[in-house]
Order: sequence, then C-alpha cells, then structure tokens
Amino acid sequence: FTVDPDKNICITAGAIEALATAVSSIVEAGDEVLIMDPGYPPYTEQVVFAGGVPVYVPLQSDNGWKIDLEKLRALITPKTKLVIICSPSNPTGMVIGKEEVEAIVKLSEEHGFFIFSDQAYEFLVYDATPTASFLAYPSIRDRLLVCYSFSKEFSMTGWRLGYLYAPEDILAQVQKVHDAFVLCAPTISQHAAQIALTKKPDADPEGMHADLSAKRELTCKRLDALPDLFSYAKPQGAFYVLARYKKTALNSRDFAVRMLKEAKVVCIPGSAFGAQGEGHVRFSYGVSDQRLDEAFDRIEKWNKTL
Amino acid sequence: FTVDPDKNICITAGAIEALATAVSSIVEAGDEVLIMDPGYPPYTEQVVFAGGVPVYVPLQSDNGWKIDLEKLRALITPKTKLVIICSPSNPTGMVIGKEEVEAIVKLSEEHGFFIFSDQAYEFLVYDATPTASFLAYPSIRDRLLVCYSFSKEFSMTGWRLGYLYAPEDILAQVQKVHDAFVLCAPTISQHAAQIALTKKPDADPEGMHADLSAKRELTCKRLDALPDLFSYAKPQGAFYVLARYKKTALNSRDFAVRMLKEAKVVCIPGSAFGAQGEGHVRFSYGVSDQRLDEAFDRIEKWNKTL
Repeated sequence: FTVDPDKNICITAGAIEALATAVSSIVEAGDEVLIMDPGYPPYTEQVVFAGGVPVYVPLQSDNGWKIDLEKLRALITPKTKLVIICSPSNPTGMVIGKEEVEAIVKLSEEHGFFIFSDQAYEFLVYDATPTASFLAYPSIRDRLLVCYSFSKEFSMTGWRLGYLYAPEDILAQVQKVHDAFVLCAPTISQHAAQIALTKKPDADPEGMHADLSAKRELTCKRLDALPDLFSYAKPQGAFYVLARYKKTALNSRDFAVRMLKEAKVVCIPGSAFGAQGEGHVRFSYGVSDQRLDEAFDRIEKWNKTL
Repeated sequence: FTVDPDKNICITAGAIEALATAVSSIVEAGDEVLIMDPGYPPYTEQVVFAGGVPVYVPLQSDNGWKIDLEKLRALITPKTKLVIICSPSNPTGMVIGKEEVEAIVKLSEEHGFFIFSDQAYEFLVYDATPTASFLAYPSIRDRLLVCYSFSKEFSMTGWRLGYLYAPEDILAQVQKVHDAFVLCAPTISQHAAQIALTKKPDADPEGMHADLSAKRELTCKRLDALPDLFSYAKPQGAFYVLARYKKTALNSRDFAVRMLKEAKVVCIPGSAFGAQGEGHVRFSYGVSDQRLDEAFDRIEKWNKTL
C-alpha cells in the first residue's frame, strides 16, 4: 500500500476538518450518507452542510452497539454516496471486527459508495479485542478515506491537528476546501506533533493505554455497583461509556441536567448522538481516578434520592 | 456600539475561517456577491463553495485601485446578497475612504445586502491617509460583519488565529459551521494572542509600522528606478505593491515564472487576484531591507536581458 504524502495526505486543523473537507468534497446535494446511530454528532452537521441526507443505521446497546449489517444493507439506495464508520466509536466504545469490515467492503464494491473511516481512537483498543482495517482491501482503495487525530493519542486536544488519507482525485478537491477554510493547520501544532512523533518511543507509549484500561475497569466497577440506575455495554476502545439509565422517564437531556444540578456530575445526553442514544448518557473516563471516584460517590448519593 | 462577546464574536482559526463561515452562513445558492477585482482569491473560492455567484467590480491601477462606485452600483441586482470589502487591500494596498464607505452604506440601506469588512491589515495605514469604518454606521449594524487577524499585526502567521464580529442571528449560524469544521481555534494560539494583546503597549507598537513604512519607501524607490519595466500605484496600507509590467506580452503567470527562473525573485501573478490583475505582479515587502535590495538588484540585472 503506497501513500504519496503530496497526493494522498492533507494535514488538517484537527481530524474534524479532515472529515468536514472530505464530506464537502464527496457529498453533492441529495446524496445519502449512512451514519451509525448513536454516532459522533458532527457527521450529521457536515452532511447537512454539504446538502446531503443523513441516513441513520440504528445500533443497539444489548448487542454491544455492534453494527447491524442487515439494517445497514437495507438502507443502501442508488443515492448512497458515503458510509461513515468510527472505530473505536465515540460515543459507544464499540470496535469494528473483520466480519463487519469485510461486509462493508463488499457492499462498497457492489454499490460504489465511499467509506470514511474515522480512526481518532485507533490507538486505544482494550484487551485482545480483534481489530480490522479498511486499509487492507485494495478493491476499495480509490473510495476509502481515513482520518487520524493527535488530540487523544498525544493528549493534544485544542492544538487542532489531524490528518486525512484520501485517494488522489478526492484529495485534490479536499485541498481546495482546506485552502478556502483554514489555509493550513497551525504550524506551531505541526512542530509540536513532530516532537511528539519523534519522542514517542522514549515516552512510555504503553503508559496511557494501561492507565485508561485501569480507568475503564474502575468506571465499570462503579457502574456495576449501581445496577438499579445504569446498565451498559463495556467499551472495547476509546474512553467513553454510553450507559442506559433506569428509574426515570426523563429524556436524556433532562436527566443529564438534573444530574449536573443535583449530583454536580457532568455527562453528555445520549440524544446528542442520535435517536438511538435517547435513554442513555455518555460518561468520559479520561480523568484522574480520584475524580472518577468522587463523581461516582456523588452519583451514588444522588441515586438514593431518585 | 455595544458588542456582546457571547453573541457577536467568534474566535476563528485565522481570519480566513471567519470569512469562510460567514460566507457559508449568509450566501445561499444563486445569491450574488460583489467582490473587488483585483482582490483576495479566497473570497471567490468561498462564494463558489457556498453556491453563490461572484460578481466582480473592476478596479483600475490608474485610479490608485480605488473602488469605482458607479461600476459597483451598476452591478447591484435583486440577487445581491453581500459585498466584500478589504481595506487596506490585499493585493493593492488601497485604503477605503469616507466617501466610498458612506456610498456603500447607503446602497446597503437601499438594497438590504450584507457588508463584510476584511480588516486584517487595518493596523497598517501609511502617512496621514484618511480612514473610515463601516462600524460607525448604526443603520447597517444588523447586516455588517468584520474580521480581524493576528497573523500580520502580531507577526503570528501560521498560528491560525483571527476573529469575527457579526450580528447575533448571523453569528448563531456561523457557530454551527465553525463547530462542524474546526470545533475551536487552536487554544495554544489563543494563549499566545492573550500575551500579545497584553504585552503590546510595552513592545513598541510603532516599531513594525515605522519599519514597514520605510520598506515601502525602499520598494517604491527601487521600482521608480525601473521605469521601463514597472509602473504602480503607491500602496496606502498593507505591505504589497501590485505593479504593472511593460516590455513584454507575457501573461502574468508566465512573467512571474520567468522572473522566478531567470532573476530568482518570487512574486505573485496578478491574474491570481482576478481578471483586472492580469498584466501585473504582486510584490510583498514584508522582508528585510537586505533581501529587498538583493531582489531588486537581481531584477535590474534581469531587466537588461529583456
């Protein structure tokens, strides 16, 4: 697999700009884009901005938020231009497996749609969860786009640095949008990234992985101790849990606001990630153990008042 | 004039993102946007990207690249949605005066179009050139947008930091595009800008102005010594000269490439800034005196071979 940096790579102001410029370059008015629900909210914004139609593939918590290939297949039409996959997923932590990757590759061969693989959390897969990559399939090479982010892997959130891999003809279009929107990724951040990439081998690359793996265990242990309030699918990657709440008929926005006001713990309403996220809230465990314990202590106390 | 930072200001990844998000928020398919020709190339890219139609107001070197109000007026139609003004202008160095500002304000009152005032070079006006601001006119307050850049005033090119002033209803739309394209301006650059703004009074704010004013004189002196090759309108602001070349029928791209190859001096072909820029090349004098002199020494030697 040969990549020509000049023809296939664009350094972007965060992975989100890679996504936005790619969606704007591929999607024309009326084109349909398959998006997993729940999924990362900007996908919808970007598709709508480009004049496209988001078509949601509903996922289920009971199934570990796995991609339902039958449902995905049933939603493909002649207007399907693009399928966006995020693995590990924000907000579910689901990791896509070889079966799903192969099925989606085959569907792309049949129907000719593009695949955008958002790999911002690629570095963070737990246990021995099997992973699979769209990059392994030459047959879709001219319809595959991949983005990466420095924000999470190198703790560079806010530095606004990511990059896009795209086929040459698409990248030529991406560069035009990139040029008209940001001109270039911040140079100071590019210098920082160069140092981050160079120093990585010395800087205990396993450290953050082990740390977040332990935080996942802590989070799950604390959620398990609240069986009357939460159920959840254990994340296979990333650092989020999308937990279903019980006990109340509140929608997820009201539930999150109430938890914020009464327990002083912040979470994201599941509805922000799509209709299937309703009835859930997303917790991020990318914080210190002490803060995680403090948050769950507060939730436990609050739970007794519900 | 009251500005509510939460409702009227968006910190952007460079002034170009302020422009791009504003144009995308205002311009709908088929809307016409008046752009000065010659002008900053991204205006056209952004208008076309938004599905709008760029309509060019031709400017003339003989007239100091002043905005021709008669021509501008004649190009207004019921579809005119936006007029983009850059003063001091890149690439011409022209500074807009009170007469033009008042005329455009009056036309906006009559026809209801938006005005985008690109003030990236606002800090850099030479001599006692009179200036005028669209911000002084309350009647257009709900149709006026203004962008600023840290790149030039604080020598922060590449840090990607600017900001947009916009009416509340437009800013609400801008925030959506901003969120979908870059999420936020680089935080490291925001910290740097805070220091730049705080330290400015101590850091000889007149220094750069005086320095660039002297470089303008040097550039004009050297151009004046080449009367058989160049004529030009002396810039009133910014740090560019858009010089007309003589002696050759080459188009500006070929002329610039030939100067690059033979004289080893780089300039931008005027055609990059619009049809009216053809027959011209843009020089930037934002470099050391030594390099400026070296460049013109090379051009003088090259000129003898033409």
